Amino acid sequence: MAWCGICGTDLHEFLDGPIFCPSAEHPNPITGEVPPVTLGHEMSGIVNFVGQGVSGLKVGDHVVVEPYIVPEGTDTSETGHYNLSEGSNFIGLGGNGGGLAEKISVDERWVHKIPDDLPLDEAALIEPLSVGYHAVERANLSEKSTVLVVGAGPIGLLTAAVAKAQGHTVIISEPSGLRRKKAQEAEVADYFFNPIEDDIQAKVHQINEKGVDAAFECTSVQPGFDACLDSIRMGGTVVIVAIWGKPASVDMAKLVIKEANLLGTIAYNNTHPKTIDLVATGKIKLNQFITGKIGLDDLIDKGFDTLIHHNETAVKILVSPTGKGL
Amino acid sequence: MAWCGICGTDLHEFLDGPIFCPSAEHPNPITGEVPPVTLGHEMSGIVNFVGQGVSGLKVGDHVVVEPYIVPEGTDTSETGHYNLSEGSNFIGLGGNGGGLAEKISVDERWVHKIPDDLPLDEAALIEPLSVGYHAVERANLSEKSTVLVVGAGPIGLLTAAVAKAQGHTVIISEPSGLRRKKAQEAEVADYFFNPIEDDIQAKVHQINEKGVDAAFECTSVQPGFDACLDSIRMGGTVVIVAIWGKPASVDMAKLVIKEANLLGTIAYNNTHPKTIDLVATGKIKLNQFITGKIGLDDLIDKGFDTLIHHNETAVKILVSPTGKGL
Repeated sequence: MAWCGICGTDLHEFLDGPIFCPSAEHPNPITGEVPPVTLGHEMSGIVNFVGQGVSGLKVGDHVVVEPYIVPEGTDTSETGHYNLSEGSNFIGLGGNGGGLAEKISVDERWVHKIPDDLPLDEAALIEPLSVGYHAVERANLSEKSTVLVVGAGPIGLLTAAVAKAQGHTVIISEPSGLRRKKAQEAEVADYFFNPIEDDIQAKVHQINEKGVDAAFECTSVQPGFDACLDSIRMGGTVVIVAIWGKPASVDMAKLVIKEANLLGTIAYNNTHPKTIDLVATGKIKLNQFITGKIGLDDLIDKGFDTLIHHNETAVKILVSPTGKGL
Repeated sequence: MAWCGICGTDLHEFLDGPIFCPSAEHPNPITGEVPPVTLGHEMSGIVNFVGQGVSGLKVGDHVVVEPYIVPEGTDTSETGHYNLSEGSNFIGLGGNGGGLAEKISVDERWVHKIPDDLPLDEAALIEPLSVGYHAVERANLSEKSTVLVVGAGPIGLLTAAVAKAQGHTVIISEPSGLRRKKAQEAEVADYFFNPIEDDIQAKVHQINEKGVDAAFECTSVQPGFDACLDSIRMGGTVVIVAIWGKPASVDMAKLVIKEANLLGTIAYNNTHPKTIDLVATGKIKLNQFITGKIGLDDLIDKGFDTLIHHNETAVKILVSPTGKGL
């Protein structure tokens, strides 16, 4: 293992878990594991050993892991929506090791080779980038669309980065000045607004009279969602990317009269080759989102605590389970 | 004009309007009209006169009117989503006459010829049938899907009828025994449940282990919506067909984890030829949904009041503006 990113999901497990993790009473039905399980699902590394029958990988290959645990017989074809398999879970949450281990054994199906010149630290962000990529896929955008991304946390930034790399016009709404600054420096959008001061709906309609084609809800708060539904055009799409802890209030009459599409998005399927290509070709620069690199001993103090208490400046903190590269 | 059906939208205008209708302060921006306007948008009739340049219709043709008022220049092509034109409205609500008049002048674009042997009273239901047809279109179903229709009022019945005619398995949830009886007699579904006594989610999963492919919300009440979201499969679709008077509470975490599609649907576009064909070929029998025929003088007492106070037995009441055919 080279690097493993800390995800918001890990923080939720740390603070409020078990959620995706098993408990003593509820072992994971596929892995059979109970706590403790090793966390970490945003991982890059170097192949150390290949098992019998592995044909597409060799020792020394630089790789990332697509961290799926899916039930036996789950579709492996290109069109397989294996992210929608009942009972599926994730390596580093449901068992099967995790990215915070020094080594991990993974079925070849889930291992993706990356170019040797793609830095392994940046490669650890391929997984959250795939979340953003799939969210954009869900919106089914036409070429040169205009989109709104509400919330510029890690997933909002990466979702915006994908939309921008695909040639769309991107508008970001984010109340934190520090987060807006990061989004501006990273050039993931064309417009940056502060929803505390700016009327987002009005700003959006100044940019595009009819409203945006799609809005991505990356905040999990009511005003964030309302800005999305108010800003889309007739027939437009709102993609819910954030994980909400409570129900949202949805103006169904508005949904109906706009003939809007309100879509959930969960993880990704068949996206890793595409996100690796976006990064390998320089269309998305992931280095700018790495705001910390720590060893395993600092996981709580300099990892979890920093992300919980300084989430305006911290984007992605990477952990080196072996201590190498620090 | 032969027949004009009374729609729930007309009742809303009568009880709480103006909604789609103009007011003295807000004339309709396209027609320029202020109250009074003639109501009625579910209409059938016989061509009495054709204007200059009309090539596809002749005097004596039996027709239905697709009651659109759309802004100048709105797309007329096959793929035109003219139902999503900003500022569009409906004949019989926004002005331009209405189905409760003895005669109406309509642009050829919006007039659809029907076979002479398709009874004109049934033809008045082509318009609400098109609402159900478009709702089913919105769900983008694969062949032989399983769907849930929640609420068996007029639009729920017609939505179920379309899904059934297309070969899907249809489950209806409706608390009123009288409405369930009507749905059973009309054979618009394969299963009929009472949500007061039956656990709809459990019943649905007994019929289809993974849940339904799509659910149609035709109640505008919270338990109706909840049954929809709980009953769809992973990646399934909820179509909001009802017009809600207040916001709904939506469990966003469920929407995300199921990667659900929550879709609004408004009116229809390019559907009339398809619904006319469904009726002309006998795949949908509309006669069974006509529960009353009245003259214009009885509009309030035997029309509106019956639909408001006896909505368990009344489905569609037709008005003859001329008194002919009564």
